[in-house]
Amino acid sequence: MTTQRRHKTNPGRFFEDYRVGQTIEHAVPRTVSGGERALYHALYPARHALYSSDTFAGACGLPASPLDDLAAFHVVFGKTVPDVSLNAVANLGYAEGRWLKPVWPGDTLRSVSEVIGLKPNSNGKTGVVWVRTTGLNQNDEAVLEYVRWVMVRKADPGAQVPEPVVPDLAKAVPADRLVIPDGLDFSTYDFTLAGEPHRWGDYEIGETIDHVDGVTVEEAEHMLATRLWQNTAKVHFDLTFRPEGRLIYGGHVISMARALSFNGLANAQMIVGLNGGAHANPCFAGDTIKAWSEVLDKAETPAPGVGAIRLRLVATKGGDPFRLKNDEGRYLPEVLLDLDYWALMPL
Amino acid sequence: MTTQRRHKTNPGRFFEDYRVGQTIEHAVPRTVSGGERALYHALYPARHALYSSDTFAGACGLPASPLDDLAAFHVVFGKTVPDVSLNAVANLGYAEGRWLKPVWPGDTLRSVSEVIGLKPNSNGKTGVVWVRTTGLNQNDEAVLEYVRWVMVRKADPGAQVPEPVVPDLAKAVPADRLVIPDGLDFSTYDFTLAGEPHRWGDYEIGETIDHVDGVTVEEAEHMLATRLWQNTAKVHFDLTFRPEGRLIYGGHVISMARALSFNGLANAQMIVGLNGGAHANPCFAGDTIKAWSEVLDKAETPAPGVGAIRLRLVATKGGDPFRLKNDEGRYLPEVLLDLDYWALMPL
Amino acid sequence: MTTQRRHKTNPGRFFEDYRVGQTIEHAVPRTVSGGERALYHALYPARHALYSSDTFAGACGLPASPLDDLAAFHVVFGKTVPDVSLNAVANLGYAEGRWLKPVWPGDTLRSVSEVIGLKPNSNGKTGVVWVRTTGLNQNDEAVLEYVRWVMVRKADPGAQVPEPVVPDLAKAVPADRLVIPDGLDFSTYDFTLAGEPHRWGDYEIGETIDHVDGVTVEEAEHMLATRLWQNTAKVHFDLTFRPEGRLIYGGHVISMARALSFNGLANAQMIVGLNGGAHANPCFAGDTIKAWSEVLDKAETPAPGVGAIRLRLVATKGGDPFRLKNDEGRYLPEVLLDLDYWALMPL
Repeated sequence: MTTQRRHKTNPGRFFEDYRVGQTIEHAVPRTVSGGERALYHALYPARHALYSSDTFAGACGLPASPLDDLAAFHVVFGKTVPDVSLNAVANLGYAEGRWLKPVWPGDTLRSVSEVIGLKPNSNGKTGVVWVRTTGLNQNDEAVLEYVRWVMVRKADPGAQVPEPVVPDLAKAVPADRLVIPDGLDFSTYDFTLAGEPHRWGDYEIGETIDHVDGVTVEEAEHMLATRLWQNTAKVHFDLTFRPEGRLIYGGHVISMARALSFNGLANAQMIVGLNGGAHANPCFAGDTIKAWSEVLDKAETPAPGVGAIRLRLVATKGGDPFRLKNDEGRYLPEVLLDLDYWALMPL
Repeated sequence: MTTQRRHKTNPGRFFEDYRVGQTIEHAVPRTVSGGERALYHALYPARHALYSSDTFAGACGLPASPLDDLAAFHVVFGKTVPDVSLNAVANLGYAEGRWLKPVWPGDTLRSVSEVIGLKPNSNGKTGVVWVRTTGLNQNDEAVLEYVRWVMVRKADPGAQVPEPVVPDLAKAVPADRLVIPDGLDFSTYDFTLAGEPHRWGDYEIGETIDHVDGVTVEEAEHMLATRLWQNTAKVHFDLTFRPEGRLIYGGHVISMARALSFNGLANAQMIVGLNGGAHANPCFAGDTIKAWSEVLDKAETPAPGVGAIRLRLVATKGGDPFRLKNDEGRYLPEVLLDLDYWALMPL
Repeated sequence: MTTQRRHKTNPGRFFEDYRVGQTIEHAVPRTVSGGERALYHALYPARHALYSSDTFAGACGLPASPLDDLAAFHVVFGKTVPDVSLNAVANLGYAEGRWLKPVWPGDTLRSVSEVIGLKPNSNGKTGVVWVRTTGLNQNDEAVLEYVRWVMVRKADPGAQVPEPVVPDLAKAVPADRLVIPDGLDFSTYDFTLAGEPHRWGDYEIGETIDHVDGVTVEEAEHMLATRLWQNTAKVHFDLTFRPEGRLIYGGHVISMARALSFNGLANAQMIVGLNGGAHANPCFAGDTIKAWSEVLDKAETPAPGVGAIRLRLVATKGGDPFRLKNDEGRYLPEVLLDLDYWALMPL
């Protein structure tokens, strides 16, 4: 044994390594199959019928049941971690997310990101990086796009930093920019098989729903999930790196909360827009995740029988539902996630 | 945030909500694939060759290796939970179960139940509900049927209750009512590849077999399994709901015990009848499940080389094998499961 | 309940049951699918692009992405456990391993072993058994072969034992005996999608690489993995059998370390040779597995753009990288695995 070559391993990018306009082709494309789908259903109490049944999806005008929208998101997101968030201090937000095409078993996904903003922090040690990430399938069709921003460390506190560029991001995806999957038709939607009778017209803006159910999460589960999406961030796996407890991947909380929201939102079938999201507090094994939702907006769509509903999805680890922030506007300590998304629902 | 609408979530049915003759179409059909099969083999030490190998199944006259019988059972059963056992106090028994058609990867399963019996308990707070559940595939062919009865709470102790109707259930499925899968032929059965030399003729009625192996169960595993079958009962997942410990889904114990029974019953290949079953005591993470079997009956079948064997399968969490009940006829505290089923075995 | 028939269960073979030249056809063939692949990626942080993406594999001249080499190894190995290592005291080594054909989703694998060596130990209680195991697919084509030797107990200390036969095993598979998969062509290899720029020419013999990342392992995970490969050894599952802690299947450590080695060896795509391996110390849940590698040798191959690299892969549970043995030549207590293999890498 002679020379040690740690430099062959990926150190991740630091703040000074990014430039606005830079394009990053993320590594390790992935082919998905019924295996990923079965695992998704084992990891989360996912019951939305369109993602559970080929016949139900067929009756809604789709050729088959697609991979869960959030599974597609996690696959695309996971690829960006080695390039974007390996040296991240915090995952700050999401915006302008749109699902553009369903992902089918057999598809191969890869991810590409463009750096769209950079802002050094006044402490001189960190900065904020904005990237717009696109997930592409084997035909180079975009299946998903979203903006994410993270706080990233500098490798060299004295490194020159660029002029700040802060992108102007939409507060929410406008309803007319949502992409409805080809052929989707809810005009003969089977509410009995879907599990609940509540249609788009039954939800009012401002209405809140306590999803009641909870899941106490385990180390083995969140690691299985996070690895499945090929997310390599050390904090999720290595207790010697983070002796105070492995941090659960924020996407695990998103998927758990969304699956729990079936109970009361069984007909919020397809996620088509991600308006924003905050991982308000960290989640650890042993926490019991519960969820509540608030209807933020509603819109019509050109597809037959299909309405869009904008939902706030809040995941908590205790406390009463419907509580979000304290008097100073800070998230309460029991709030794990505050997500803002658009879903498609039968009229 | 304004009106709270908890009523959009499913409260489950209470005793007074059932009527004899009522038909319940259960929600969320499910398409199964090689993913469910792989997960079944990761969750249980399943080794019956017919469910492990397309070539072995082909040599037995089947087009391919079907989904494990008990996986099919769990999928069908899981759908009934939100409608039948969400407010159940206890799962009391099974009867008249028959597997009617193999389930293949690609099949979509749904479940329908008929209420066939109701009996209020004298305490005025609970009652017993009997349902006959049928699992159907995408061609509306029945793949499985069974009777289950549960003790269910009343929402309103003063609610009017119907006249008792107690169904007359067979003590065991008669051998001539067992359905042999189309094409099944054990006349050229390969005992070497199956793993044991013992054929139908080698087992005697009254014979008992200690399956020797054991598995110490973990929280993550039983939750993965229970979610995979889309069984939503809170007691399995939410430690804040049940601080004394998450109760392990009884079907997890059934599958674990059946898989352990490979060692001594490797040739009891296909389950075709469920005569009865009791979840004698609760199972928790940390328990070590072991199993023993007793040969209860044997019968011939019209299929070439195929015999039927009726087995008692007992799962325990400690203690010596072959002990079941105390002098008062009560299950010993270490007994988890007492199952009575028919399997097909090479002559 | 009458006669107890424990003899129907498999007691495993004891040292005196083996004869040189004996052929053992192992039971329970297995068909693999996308499910096994997805589970492999959930259980290990596997990111080698050729096993992740059909399109990447296609661009390398293969018809699709094969099942991970080590998953194929585990399936073939698992079948041998009931016949070879159920009464093993220790798994002593591997040699002359070669991957002969990729395994594709849909393939059915079985295993056959030949006893090639026997040596009784001087204590009279145990002996060493050498077997050469071959994995075969549904067309009876060999996909994998390797020699393994284990120390096995005698059932009867007084049993007659054969004359010692110690096979003469190659220290390493010669590079010209490595089998390159049909069609493999790395001449247009995409280093960006693969995740690292380092090609065969960038690695020097003697070079060492610290793979940096670590995974703290959990009981549920190693049991899921070990069951998936149908490995039935009690020590991995039954805490009443081994109250000091369930021993983690050595193959779990191999796969974990290999997956971690992506970081620094992302282009060591296909494993084609297993020269040797020692499970230096036992691994238990709670251990954090890390890995480092050393380049032992390099060779050219006849395939376009394809080089072979011989690597030592060391898994540890703590301590500094690049430390292996103490002054007396014994493995340090933190070393879990010392594996010697050949991989294929783009020139």
